[in-house]
Amino acid sequence: MKQLWDSRFTKAVNKEVIDFTSSIHLDKRLYKYDIQGSIAHVRMLDKCKIINSRDATRIINGLKLILREIQTKKIKFYTFDEDIHMAIEKRLINKIGSAGEKLHTARSRNDQVSLDMRLYLRDEIISLLKLIKNLQKVIIELAQKYINIIIPGFTHLQHGQPVALSHHLMAYYFMLKRDCERMNECLTRVNVLPLGAGALAGTELPIDRRYVAKLLGFQRVSANSIDTVSDRDFVIEFLGIASILAMHLSRLSEELILWSSEEFSFIELDDAFCTGSSIMPQKKNPDVAELIRAKTGQVYGNLMAMLTVMKGLPLSYNRDMQEDKKCLFDTVDITGAVLRILPNLLKSLKVNKDHISQVIKSGFLAATDVSNYLVIKGVPFRQAHGITGGIVKYCLKTNRRIEELSLGELKKFSGKFSSDIFQKLKMENCVANKQSLGGTSPKELVNVIKKEKKEQGF
Amino acid sequence: MKQLWDSRFTKAVNKEVIDFTSSIHLDKRLYKYDIQGSIAHVRMLDKCKIINSRDATRIINGLKLILREIQTKKIKFYTFDEDIHMAIEKRLINKIGSAGEKLHTARSRNDQVSLDMRLYLRDEIISLLKLIKNLQKVIIELAQKYINIIIPGFTHLQHGQPVALSHHLMAYYFMLKRDCERMNECLTRVNVLPLGAGALAGTELPIDRRYVAKLLGFQRVSANSIDTVSDRDFVIEFLGIASILAMHLSRLSEELILWSSEEFSFIELDDAFCTGSSIMPQKKNPDVAELIRAKTGQVYGNLMAMLTVMKGLPLSYNRDMQEDKKCLFDTVDITGAVLRILPNLLKSLKVNKDHISQVIKSGFLAATDVSNYLVIKGVPFRQAHGITGGIVKYCLKTNRRIEELSLGELKKFSGKFSSDIFQKLKMENCVANKQSLGGTSPKELVNVIKKEKKEQGF
Amino acid sequence: MKQLWDSRFTKAVNKEVIDFTSSIHLDKRLYKYDIQGSIAHVRMLDKCKIINSRDATRIINGLKLILREIQTKKIKFYTFDEDIHMAIEKRLINKIGSAGEKLHTARSRNDQVSLDMRLYLRDEIISLLKLIKNLQKVIIELAQKYINIIIPGFTHLQHGQPVALSHHLMAYYFMLKRDCERMNECLTRVNVLPLGAGALAGTELPIDRRYVAKLLGFQRVSANSIDTVSDRDFVIEFLGIASILAMHLSRLSEELILWSSEEFSFIELDDAFCTGSSIMPQKKNPDVAELIRAKTGQVYGNLMAMLTVMKGLPLSYNRDMQEDKKCLFDTVDITGAVLRILPNLLKSLKVNKDHISQVIKSGFLAATDVSNYLVIKGVPFRQAHGITGGIVKYCLKTNRRIEELSLGELKKFSGKFSSDIFQKLKMENCVANKQSLGGTSPKELVNVIKKEKKEQGF
Amino acid sequence: MKQLWDSRFTKAVNKEVIDFTSSIHLDKRLYKYDIQGSIAHVRMLDKCKIINSRDATRIINGLKLILREIQTKKIKFYTFDEDIHMAIEKRLINKIGSAGEKLHTARSRNDQVSLDMRLYLRDEIISLLKLIKNLQKVIIELAQKYINIIIPGFTHLQHGQPVALSHHLMAYYFMLKRDCERMNECLTRVNVLPLGAGALAGTELPIDRRYVAKLLGFQRVSANSIDTVSDRDFVIEFLGIASILAMHLSRLSEELILWSSEEFSFIELDDAFCTGSSIMPQKKNPDVAELIRAKTGQVYGNLMAMLTVMKGLPLSYNRDMQEDKKCLFDTVDITGAVLRILPNLLKSLKVNKDHISQVIKSGFLAATDVSNYLVIKGVPFRQAHGITGGIVKYCLKTNRRIEELSLGELKKFSGKFSSDIFQKLKMENCVANKQSLGGTSPKELVNVIKKEKKEQGF
Repeated sequence: MKQLWDSRFTKAVNKEVIDFTSSIHLDKRLYKYDIQGSIAHVRMLDKCKIINSRDATRIINGLKLILREIQTKKIKFYTFDEDIHMAIEKRLINKIGSAGEKLHTARSRNDQVSLDMRLYLRDEIISLLKLIKNLQKVIIELAQKYINIIIPGFTHLQHGQPVALSHHLMAYYFMLKRDCERMNECLTRVNVLPLGAGALAGTELPIDRRYVAKLLGFQRVSANSIDTVSDRDFVIEFLGIASILAMHLSRLSEELILWSSEEFSFIELDDAFCTGSSIMPQKKNPDVAELIRAKTGQVYGNLMAMLTVMKGLPLSYNRDMQEDKKCLFDTVDITGAVLRILPNLLKSLKVNKDHISQVIKSGFLAATDVSNYLVIKGVPFRQAHGITGGIVKYCLKTNRRIEELSLGELKKFSGKFSSDIFQKLKMENCVANKQSLGGTSPKELVNVIKKEKKEQGF
Repeated sequence: MKQLWDSRFTKAVNKEVIDFTSSIHLDKRLYKYDIQGSIAHVRMLDKCKIINSRDATRIINGLKLILREIQTKKIKFYTFDEDIHMAIEKRLINKIGSAGEKLHTARSRNDQVSLDMRLYLRDEIISLLKLIKNLQKVIIELAQKYINIIIPGFTHLQHGQPVALSHHLMAYYFMLKRDCERMNECLTRVNVLPLGAGALAGTELPIDRRYVAKLLGFQRVSANSIDTVSDRDFVIEFLGIASILAMHLSRLSEELILWSSEEFSFIELDDAFCTGSSIMPQKKNPDVAELIRAKTGQVYGNLMAMLTVMKGLPLSYNRDMQEDKKCLFDTVDITGAVLRILPNLLKSLKVNKDHISQVIKSGFLAATDVSNYLVIKGVPFRQAHGITGGIVKYCLKTNRRIEELSLGELKKFSGKFSSDIFQKLKMENCVANKQSLGGTSPKELVNVIKKEKKEQGF
Repeated sequence: MKQLWDSRFTKAVNKEVIDFTSSIHLDKRLYKYDIQGSIAHVRMLDKCKIINSRDATRIINGLKLILREIQTKKIKFYTFDEDIHMAIEKRLINKIGSAGEKLHTARSRNDQVSLDMRLYLRDEIISLLKLIKNLQKVIIELAQKYINIIIPGFTHLQHGQPVALSHHLMAYYFMLKRDCERMNECLTRVNVLPLGAGALAGTELPIDRRYVAKLLGFQRVSANSIDTVSDRDFVIEFLGIASILAMHLSRLSEELILWSSEEFSFIELDDAFCTGSSIMPQKKNPDVAELIRAKTGQVYGNLMAMLTVMKGLPLSYNRDMQEDKKCLFDTVDITGAVLRILPNLLKSLKVNKDHISQVIKSGFLAATDVSNYLVIKGVPFRQAHGITGGIVKYCLKTNRRIEELSLGELKKFSGKFSSDIFQKLKMENCVANKQSLGGTSPKELVNVIKKEKKEQGF
Repeated sequence: MKQLWDSRFTKAVNKEVIDFTSSIHLDKRLYKYDIQGSIAHVRMLDKCKIINSRDATRIINGLKLILREIQTKKIKFYTFDEDIHMAIEKRLINKIGSAGEKLHTARSRNDQVSLDMRLYLRDEIISLLKLIKNLQKVIIELAQKYINIIIPGFTHLQHGQPVALSHHLMAYYFMLKRDCERMNECLTRVNVLPLGAGALAGTELPIDRRYVAKLLGFQRVSANSIDTVSDRDFVIEFLGIASILAMHLSRLSEELILWSSEEFSFIELDDAFCTGSSIMPQKKNPDVAELIRAKTGQVYGNLMAMLTVMKGLPLSYNRDMQEDKKCLFDTVDITGAVLRILPNLLKSLKVNKDHISQVIKSGFLAATDVSNYLVIKGVPFRQAHGITGGIVKYCLKTNRRIEELSLGELKKFSGKFSSDIFQKLKMENCVANKQSLGGTSPKELVNVIKKEKKEQGF
């Protein structure tokens, strides 16, 4: 099989080798970016008089035609096409002849593939940012809806203190906000023009890289041609950010699964978001949440894969770097799919308010408030904590709850108790009183939500 | 979209949810095993009189027909088929009516999917073992061919002592031997019947699991139904073994790349196993070796993915476990592809004997032999090492090699030197003298190769 | 700082470099194995007349003295000792003079460090196997104790079918059994003598490797000297096995955490195995289980670390391999610590029988039994599943449980129902009826436990 | 053993449990930050009149005294101290009595530990940034020094085009520049005050979080108390950035190892930065570079560990999160050690100019320049590439180099060749001509270096 680069070879490349090394089945999804990049490149070659305008026009028209043909599936790709870059260049030459042979002037696949990957990832990050923002919007809507529902706040999966469900949901909002911050910063490093690095050394042809950057909307031009073709930081950085995002969503999924268990029964997932069992007729399984949780594995794995690929590679380009595509495309696909389904799943949730309101009545969720009651009355915190611990132990022994104790009984533990303690013990008050910045009181939450909605333009 | 399990649901499952949860695009490759398992299951149901023989025959014939239809691509699978198990069961019911509705008696997808995965992996391990054996055969052939070529043996990528190229190659043979050992042991744990565990509890129907095991060639029957449906150890264990194998092959690839560099020039890769550059006309790149090295990343990543998926999952089956397919199939595919191409690549290598024979003449490869010469003459080793170090330092200063020193010069370092030292310094003798068990002498190598060929039946 | 190997160097090694490269702070824990290996090596040198018996005796006595001095902390190690091998050899030479300079005859640190690691890991695997067996014993005791407690069996963390708590516990027993199988097989590959490989080429001195193997209890002698010094498979294989074990224990921990939550309340952890909160006086946290779950992270990380270290390393020994110690020691320590504390934690658990017996009365745990009831009465399974799904939907709508329906109501769904169905619906019967091999019936469990106790010698 | 939180418990915590859960051996390194944080907290409690000024002063003086005692090693920590927070609070109470019992007012260990970790990591990131900058400075100095040395530029470890050694070195400079960018951005997310989140809900006490942030130099205050105590993003993000940095340094190390091999001999490492062999007297090993390459493994492993720990954890704080310390401290330590030793190693390198100048004369490094020569003369690039490939093939067959061909011979391949081609083929010109932005010409390099030095203030 004749290749565009094989004039120095005495034998044709082995069929098996082509199968093994070809990446066209994966990188064909870059076709749009490859053509976009080539058109900008050719415009620059024309402007810099490296090729003449007639040839430039022919190439650009040829490329646009190929773009339409791919979009309308008129073009099929084959393993022997090697990769999308060669596939398109070959077709161009077939279509327009020797003008097409000028397309690859002053560039190499090494800078071209980095260009395509950057154009692709730039688009995908922008899409993912929109999807995250949409998820944040849904979370804020739910947070507004559930601002008066009090749930047990957990630490160590044990009841800690009562909190607003809204506050719990907003925790995820803020995780996602950090994810967006990181992704935007990564975008800055993605949004750098690699073209013009050539194979590794730059070029003696009088190219104008800043012009190409302008045409393609890149904010920066890469500063060192060897680094440019050796670099996949932008892929790894993205995979790392996606891993943290996946981790966040695995935590949310875990809670959806827990909360929809018979034991918790805090929420009910909509039938439309569950699947049944092939054998157990009563089952309604939180499959979507389970799969979101599970997909974290592949996202982490892709990060580890790419870190492994790059470890210890001497400069500059090595074929190893071709493996970036599988990792990146897979993580982009998983992340997109998860972000598309999750908002709808969340919107369809039913919160079992009545059940939750029973749950928070049991146990000792107000114990910390008892301590702080004593603190306010002048008891050193550590003593207050000890006194309250003693009360809890007494309640456990006598099988009662704190609010069921009489003032007399409480006074045996500390003379500081007076009848206002019973008001303090009400869940609503426990929550409403936590008015510290970032605390769970509805008052503070309303402010936070308002501020965030404004900032986000929701 | 109506599902076989949704009679308890009040709403149809959301289209998006089906897209998100469906695994048919991946697990359709299990069709053969799914049908094989179902036929054995039905034979047992018949034998145990859980269904009647007429129905059993109908089901078996239906399944065989479906098998042929899939093999001849008459059947297309769709996302709403969910998975290969449901896809086949649905088609069976469509084809043969209510008899088909008896297929899933006394089983669950939970034990069925484990069955399919085990049948699949058993086959794949057997195939991979053959491929490894073939690679070992090629290595042994090369080892025989190159038994008299002496190369510098490296530690820290510095010249250490001269060794037979054959000995170096056989190091890989023995790595692969351990890989086979591990894979065979894993096979024992793959080769366990899970069917009959049901959803998680076993069944009250009078099934005969040992009979199914016999029909399907399983050596063991799983001992605990909850463990059975919760367990993906066999997948992870395989992924771990494949990771070590990939690591071994990454080391071999690294050496192929190094050795075919201009600087080393120990070997030349065949044109048919290289590719060229889109821009640099002279380039001949060791792409196959680079890609083998790189694919280690994905293999490690898949291991990490599956370990992550299973971490902290409560018993028994969780939908998370569906993600095992992507990891396993991908690692099986990569490993197979690498093992198929590597033997041919190795066979096509040209060893630059003349260049290597020049290389081993420079430097101080015989220094350790000088030390041991002195040891044999009664000098304590640590002193002998020091004396030789001094000789090397002297040579570096005077820009000479040890064999260029006169006996008189050597005697200044130790009176133990006599003229027999010069014989000792010859590379052939350095190698031939290392006759310890497992050492590099051709004599020992011939024995080792003979023994291994016999053991392997080569 | 003078080193034993620096006679060829013109400058002393930089202090910083010694700090950076020294591994003595980690590998000093190998001192016992280093001395054990050296003594066997010297016995062989004596037997093979490579050194004389007087020197051999002096060396052995010197090494034994050093062993006692280390054990009684009379010896301090310093960074400039480099590693435990050099530290001991230096002290030996200081103590016994030139005889000590013969210790390192016919060996290299490359084979010596592999020897020490193998002796160490052999011991540790044997210890871990005992610890796992002890954990299995505790599990079997609990399984016997709780054989009549019925809990909801979960799939997707939803109630699936009722199972014996004993059966659930035994699932972990069988996971651990696989862990032991794997660890024993790994032991075979650890238990291989590397000594005699020398730096990488073997040796010309007339050593007897089989004799050393016999002295040290190794079952095999390594077959290729280059492979021997290049190989860390045995470390990675162990790290992989430890990762699967950690995963198993993370699942058990997850369940301990879930089950001791207020919502589940299946169990109560003993006060002695929990810790409290610095602020919330009522808290009793399952810290031990949480930490066991968390330590999975480091165990996975160590596996990934070592796989990364070895990726793409050319043969033979490279200094990179020194990093095996940190990974291996850390995983051994974590695994041992977890296995020591877990049995006591399990023994101290209190099962909330009364609460659990309430839990299993709610919901639709018997739905699968209803299906199978119909199957036995001749209804094709898929129809029976559908009928039962309809009953569940009816119950949900009318807020009832299946056993609360009248026979008349049931008959509306299928004419096959008769009064014996109500017996079928009892949880005790659901469990007792699952008598298939590996099923949850107490009858089957008694057999399994008996068989396993016999096999294990409990 | 009495704990500060155990008043609710009926039994003392098991000794084993304390050993297993205690983190004091690791987190004692946070003592400075713990005390710094406590002092700021107490100042705020005083300002907000939650405690009185006399108590505040006592606490602050007590804490300062404890700080000095720790710094002068007067304080020993024990396992039963649990963690550094409890250890210090206990000592404070011992020292100053009931005023000390007020320290923990309005905070929890959950927000306190996040505070300590953030203060620690902020300091460490600032230190690491300085170390990276220092490494960049050394690289720039070397780049200036070697601006006229031409080396073969590699792709696929094959000779590609000639480049300036300086340009190759500057590639690492720019990798490090991205590392700094990422680390600075991470710093923004580290530099957020968590204190005031309490256990998870905030507090009813009238605290002033902005004041604490001001005292401690935090730029932001965390916005959601549940998120605050659940969050370890800042740790994972840092571990990810450190992984990319480690990857960069593994590539540099790989090249140092390759380039100092006998085969490459591009550089010689200084004796002071190498170590020798215990057996092979002539060896001089690049251990430092090997260990830097290897330590990448542990850095990746720590990232994977922490991602695993956090996967699927329900909110809010779980004890699992304690494992962040081991991962973070280890990665900080490794990264610091590597960054401290590497500049000195680089400075001590000797470049073998004469050897390199021979190397670049062989082979076909100018082939791409031949193509571009033809392009400039009007030959379409793809044809020019083909013509040059033909010339290379001809040279290989006739065993000559391009510059050895006569003009007549060249003209047989293309009529466009004229005598100016021979000037083009000179390595100096190949390099000097690559004047595109970011290209390898010394002219461009001088500009780049000047710009970067100015930006960095070097």
